Amino acid sequence: MDMAKKKYNVAVLGATGMVGKEMMKVLEERKFPVNKFLPLASTRTAGTKVTFKGKKYTVEVAKPESFEGIDIGLFSAGAKISEMLAPEAVKRGTVVIDNTSFFRMDPNVPLVVPEVNAYDLKWHKGIIANPNCSTAQMLMAIKPIHDVAKIKRIVVSTYQSTSGWGKEAVEELFTQTKAVLAGKKAQVKILPKQIAFNVIPQIDSFTSNGYTKEEMKMVNETKKIMGDPSIQVTATTVRVPVVIGHSEAVNIETERKITAKQVREILSKFPTVKVMDDPEKGVYPTPVDCPGKDETFVGRIREDISIPNGIDMWIVSDNLRRGAATNAVIIAEKMIEEGLI
Amino acid sequence: MDMAKKKYNVAVLGATGMVGKEMMKVLEERKFPVNKFLPLASTRTAGTKVTFKGKKYTVEVAKPESFEGIDIGLFSAGAKISEMLAPEAVKRGTVVIDNTSFFRMDPNVPLVVPEVNAYDLKWHKGIIANPNCSTAQMLMAIKPIHDVAKIKRIVVSTYQSTSGWGKEAVEELFTQTKAVLAGKKAQVKILPKQIAFNVIPQIDSFTSNGYTKEEMKMVNETKKIMGDPSIQVTATTVRVPVVIGHSEAVNIETERKITAKQVREILSKFPTVKVMDDPEKGVYPTPVDCPGKDETFVGRIREDISIPNGIDMWIVSDNLRRGAATNAVIIAEKMIEEGLI
Repeated sequence: MDMAKKKYNVAVLGATGMVGKEMMKVLEERKFPVNKFLPLASTRTAGTKVTFKGKKYTVEVAKPESFEGIDIGLFSAGAKISEMLAPEAVKRGTVVIDNTSFFRMDPNVPLVVPEVNAYDLKWHKGIIANPNCSTAQMLMAIKPIHDVAKIKRIVVSTYQSTSGWGKEAVEELFTQTKAVLAGKKAQVKILPKQIAFNVIPQIDSFTSNGYTKEEMKMVNETKKIMGDPSIQVTATTVRVPVVIGHSEAVNIETERKITAKQVREILSKFPTVKVMDDPEKGVYPTPVDCPGKDETFVGRIREDISIPNGIDMWIVSDNLRRGAATNAVIIAEKMIEEGLI
Repeated sequence: MDMAKKKYNVAVLGATGMVGKEMMKVLEERKFPVNKFLPLASTRTAGTKVTFKGKKYTVEVAKPESFEGIDIGLFSAGAKISEMLAPEAVKRGTVVIDNTSFFRMDPNVPLVVPEVNAYDLKWHKGIIANPNCSTAQMLMAIKPIHDVAKIKRIVVSTYQSTSGWGKEAVEELFTQTKAVLAGKKAQVKILPKQIAFNVIPQIDSFTSNGYTKEEMKMVNETKKIMGDPSIQVTATTVRVPVVIGHSEAVNIETERKITAKQVREILSKFPTVKVMDDPEKGVYPTPVDCPGKDETFVGRIREDISIPNGIDMWIVSDNLRRGAATNAVIIAEKMIEEGLI
């Protein structure tokens, strides 16, 4: 980023969670201009120690007053806490970048993937929503194609890692895997069914139309972020026994014909997208390749043989990064750049 | 089945493999009228002992002469062995039901899912091909919908278990999983990339249009089995760290409108399909539910919100059974019933 001379007081709310920790890492790596650093959490995990830029901090309980003098609040402690505390933080002059689902569909809140719709940041009223992880990475590949060929419809099936449901879900994956390997029964606690050596076609709860909330996020957030409600989306979101890294099999239908070669060229030029697409040489992304990386990896790009204007592709990204921490930090950087903070 | 009084001499070629073993189990369970039983394999595994109906047998090396006096040959020892031995068996009066890909697209060979196109058995010339596992289970749900609403297009993403690639792939999954849990590097041998805590968007090798052979099987076998080349299919086939049980996220577009409720009713009446679809109560199929079962399980049935005439659904089945062993044995039963053997 273009480093501003000014430094900012930054609070990370949810500092003990997987996304919160990743936010701290990303702030460090990108040399974000942090003045005061304040790690916050709910009462459940406050008191824990965390390290930021080599310095130990005790995580404080998040309260309305915590935000006095805080310029930027990165929120990732659950929708209920965001609902309660984001307006309080805004009242105190904090710009809140919220990773939960709570404000995403609020017409007064921009929902932003910076590479896709940074222009929506300018009408913010204090809160900016970070999209759902699976939507964010998908749109990194969808946006540049849309600009050239206009996306009419998306059919997406996801292969989402357990870290998307938090660290308890990751622990459950490991505990169950060890149990199954030892010939024991897997105990189901956090996730809706056994995840070890299994896949679960349920992420979040069900809505009245038979889709899950996660699936409806992909439908609705896509329209809002792309600023085009005519883009039709259907999604099946599935949890797989992977630790970090969401994968997506994405089928698109476009208004105008676009070839696989053109898609590779367009995506190669798009910021933070990396095309890994030489399948005969074994070059395509898988989730174990992506942890700790900020790129969205795209491979298996091919012309859909079932319709005249279709493309199939395979999109993989670190869900804690592009889908959460990195996206939030890049939003903050963009806002500084454009004088919005 | 309607038990004929006659008994048949049955050879299982590939008797030491996962599908071969499952074929023996299915023959036992279904009380198939076996007279002489002959387990065969390639030189690599011949000599092994197997048990059938409580009796031990030594697996013999498969040779053209092995098929003298054999009525039914269930082949599952790889495409090359089928290519070589199926014609030899047919010459000797054996009806070959071949589980490999070798003869599937041969216009002189019926490709059959008995519940879907048993009528194709009658023009057989000695060899009947068993479809690819992921195609077979998908068509169990597609056929009854097609009959009512006419399928125009299918977009399918698969979640395929390691047993689909044989027992060495299953061993690799376990070995790698233990290594990763112990903090070691996963050694890749059989599968194209690490499978432990990962997913691999490659099954079989790549073809010139960017699809894999497995994906093209789903495209081409669907048209042949359904007897309708106008059905358009695009597929992304993905290996997941599951032992047994393939899952599929299937999106269909139909000529005529059909509701989710109608789909549930139609599928419930179709033989060996089991609808498991009460998601709010946690009722939907996952792969760990299916090993050893002959049913194709369908859940997550919902009207696609992205097009007027669309349905999304989730199909799970034991790939060694419906996709291989059970399908082959039911073909043999049907042929006996209809006097074709």
